Amino acid sequence: MAQVTIYDTTLRDGSQGEGISYSVTDKIRIAEELDALGIHYIEGGWPGSNPKDMEFYVKVAKLHLKNSAMVAFCSTRRPNTAAEDDPNLKSTVTSQAKYATVFGKTWDLHVKDVLKATLEENIAMIKDTVRFLVSKGLIVFYDAEHFFDAYRTNREYSLLCITAAESAGAKAIVLCDTNGGTLTSEVFRVVREIRGQVKVLLGIHCHNDAGIAIANSIAAVEAGADMVQGTINGYGERCGNADLIPIIANISLKLGKESIGTDKIKELTHVSHFVSEISNMRQRSDQPYTGASAFAHKGGVHINAVMKNPATYEHIDPAVVGNHRRMLVSELGGKTGIVIRAKDINLDLNKDTPQTKKLLDLLQKLENEGYHFEAAEASFELLMKRSLKKYKKFFDLEGFRVVIEKRSDKNITSEAIIKLKVKGAKEHTAAEGDGPVNALDNALRKALSEFYPTLSKMHLSDFKVRVLDEKSGTAARVRVLIQSQDETDSWSTIGVHENIIEASWQALVDSIEYKLLKDGVKDT
Amino acid sequence: MAQVTIYDTTLRDGSQGEGISYSVTDKIRIAEELDALGIHYIEGGWPGSNPKDMEFYVKVAKLHLKNSAMVAFCSTRRPNTAAEDDPNLKSTVTSQAKYATVFGKTWDLHVKDVLKATLEENIAMIKDTVRFLVSKGLIVFYDAEHFFDAYRTNREYSLLCITAAESAGAKAIVLCDTNGGTLTSEVFRVVREIRGQVKVLLGIHCHNDAGIAIANSIAAVEAGADMVQGTINGYGERCGNADLIPIIANISLKLGKESIGTDKIKELTHVSHFVSEISNMRQRSDQPYTGASAFAHKGGVHINAVMKNPATYEHIDPAVVGNHRRMLVSELGGKTGIVIRAKDINLDLNKDTPQTKKLLDLLQKLENEGYHFEAAEASFELLMKRSLKKYKKFFDLEGFRVVIEKRSDKNITSEAIIKLKVKGAKEHTAAEGDGPVNALDNALRKALSEFYPTLSKMHLSDFKVRVLDEKSGTAARVRVLIQSQDETDSWSTIGVHENIIEASWQALVDSIEYKLLKDGVKDT
Repeated sequence: MAQVTIYDTTLRDGSQGEGISYSVTDKIRIAEELDALGIHYIEGGWPGSNPKDMEFYVKVAKLHLKNSAMVAFCSTRRPNTAAEDDPNLKSTVTSQAKYATVFGKTWDLHVKDVLKATLEENIAMIKDTVRFLVSKGLIVFYDAEHFFDAYRTNREYSLLCITAAESAGAKAIVLCDTNGGTLTSEVFRVVREIRGQVKVLLGIHCHNDAGIAIANSIAAVEAGADMVQGTINGYGERCGNADLIPIIANISLKLGKESIGTDKIKELTHVSHFVSEISNMRQRSDQPYTGASAFAHKGGVHINAVMKNPATYEHIDPAVVGNHRRMLVSELGGKTGIVIRAKDINLDLNKDTPQTKKLLDLLQKLENEGYHFEAAEASFELLMKRSLKKYKKFFDLEGFRVVIEKRSDKNITSEAIIKLKVKGAKEHTAAEGDGPVNALDNALRKALSEFYPTLSKMHLSDFKVRVLDEKSGTAARVRVLIQSQDETDSWSTIGVHENIIEASWQALVDSIEYKLLKDGVKDT
Repeated sequence: MAQVTIYDTTLRDGSQGEGISYSVTDKIRIAEELDALGIHYIEGGWPGSNPKDMEFYVKVAKLHLKNSAMVAFCSTRRPNTAAEDDPNLKSTVTSQAKYATVFGKTWDLHVKDVLKATLEENIAMIKDTVRFLVSKGLIVFYDAEHFFDAYRTNREYSLLCITAAESAGAKAIVLCDTNGGTLTSEVFRVVREIRGQVKVLLGIHCHNDAGIAIANSIAAVEAGADMVQGTINGYGERCGNADLIPIIANISLKLGKESIGTDKIKELTHVSHFVSEISNMRQRSDQPYTGASAFAHKGGVHINAVMKNPATYEHIDPAVVGNHRRMLVSELGGKTGIVIRAKDINLDLNKDTPQTKKLLDLLQKLENEGYHFEAAEASFELLMKRSLKKYKKFFDLEGFRVVIEKRSDKNITSEAIIKLKVKGAKEHTAAEGDGPVNALDNALRKALSEFYPTLSKMHLSDFKVRVLDEKSGTAARVRVLIQSQDETDSWSTIGVHENIIEASWQALVDSIEYKLLKDGVKDT
């Protein structure tokens, strides 16, 4: 039996985050990952609020998840209506979920200003709702909305609300900091006080409006809470919900309590990235434990120390959560960063080699122009080899022209014409594409593939555009990052220019040259 | 006298963040903003480590900042070297800063594995360094690196280190959680214990590797710390430093203590956005207090409640920190969201108007295609007006052609040719630009400005590109967001298409049409 149960509400509260919208398929894919991770409860949505959520519950029931129980979310019955006549509660029953979480008002301000009901009627609503769902065979949890605000301003009434839910048969009382404004010390104190009064499971549900939802959740566990509610990556309305990823890691690695199972902790990085992908949200590189920068070292002092003993600047071994260490190539990393990267690719450089200084100067100049080799290791390798004359070009560009044309309301077309010299031959060809960069990519491969057949085995897997000095409007400088892959590897390249086509061209050429170099193809 | 002093290290520790690189000018601009915000101490860099930092100290001394004192950062002297012979310490003295922060080893693991010195020598290094700088007239703070790890594993030695610094004349002892792995409850307990032993100022310096740096800093203040070190927006190596923005807000609005001055709290949103701009980092929309989503309401239940009483789902009044409330137009906001936006622009819609349902369906369809009107309110206004036939076109496009050309190693050029009908006339013109979108923007304005002279008063102020399904490579769908402004207003428009030129075109046209509509210009 787990000491702390984890309750995920990514699919319900997380979907309220700005920029997030899940299809039913998205929800199913996320639920499968949460199940594999060993999450105890998955709140899938609000079956009474929209047909999409109901469709999800029907589909997910067929998956027979191994570890996770599905929970349907609903509100207390409407004022002055019988529970059995409330369509919201009927949908909860028909959702096929075995668990239901009822959220109800606990703060007198909400009862008066939002519900417009009497304080007594709200207590009756809580009791009736819990009793009704229990009578239908559901295991019921009670989310005491705004509990901390309520306890601060009308303690007596807030306690009446949770007592009503418990006495009506709720199997968990969840204290919600709905507005996210409560400090950690207060969360700890209040949870400890309530722990003495509640016999059933005690849960915590925090929001991040004061930037402390993770700490508040951990403090609640230290004060005796048995269940933590939150979302993957902290998605949610306003500043988001408590982020379950670092919470699970902190519970396991810092508090030494069990939650999802020690063998699952190493999946956290994968799940965090998977959910950000499905949610179409940029993965925060500085995300605790699972971000790309979480174990990245940039300062020369830090890089030197970590080479001696990783514990000097790493609070845990990154492999424990499925992440890995990175030594960043940058001005601040200094010569050490360059020497380490050179060693990786069998170039013989040390701190005192004159070329090391020359490379550092070049790196500094390019970083000032907006290049960022931290995220484009293949381009940095090419840069080193070009600078050390360990490299010859695979083709010479004579010129290209890209034409984008739109006629009235008709579709827009893109065409690229390219002329280059490769292995002594002249190639002059053209291709269309879904946009100017795609057209150029197609034309370049068309011109080269006859001479370098392995190029047909690689493809672009990711394409990112970033406007650098956004305030200059459409004349701003653009950074393009391209991720490419073949059957065995994946590599990143970069281009920077005021013209997005030129920036893309630089990254495309690096991508192809890296592939050819990697394959040991002879140059022209 | 402030109860809690704020010590900013954005320019030193913040610049270690992946993706951040400051020029001297960037540093000067940030220092000016921090001074205006009333930050007590600014750590500007490490004058002994590179010439750029030294140049910054010389320049900033000429600014005569009003509120902030400049602090130079340095390490303790090298092992077995006299302090007066250490070039790092000489640079600190010549930096003209009145304050110096010395960081030194406190954890025996670091003394043995990184310094390779004896424990006694490290104590001597701390004492000598502090004494030397004090003798040169500097006020010295001591950053006890890895204090919490040290106190956990070799308490006696960690105390010897801070006692050495204090006895040598340090005016502040700063407890650093350098690896960011300490839980809030432990930070509180340790700070309270040390508070009883240190006579001078006690500071806290947290990193965010466990996602709790903000809470740890606040807990330290509750335990008796007088000074908080951190960075704007939490920039810093790995998972970043403690984010001073929510820390300052929490100290003032939650703990009720003074820090930068109550009248300055309303500048937090501005400073947070300004620093993210200069740092060329994407502003996190879910950032506590200052993010664009921090007071944005999306769910229908929440929107309805906030309309009745904002305290129902807002922990503070957003205006207090210079932010503002937003009601998001989205599927989840439902008809209420649309009705509220319609009212803002004097369109007569209510929940039962058939057009409201029609607009909601259209919104849902476009959001599925990748449009995001949450961030493009001008485009949404045009969409509503077009859908309600409250609108006529200002011009008709007959066609455009954009040609991008590159010859061998020569510069790339972009040219746009455009043909349109405006007020009965036919315009056929062309323009060059720094890239294809800039060329198109120039050609469009050239064709229209004679007919609509107020267009010369507007310009694009921001241009963002996001690749939506990044995994499709260069054929992916692209979302373009354009921000425009004139003397009085600022507005955002959006375009989405597989072709970046078409997506940009949509956003450009919306931007110009919104301007003309806003000015009450008669259509053709």
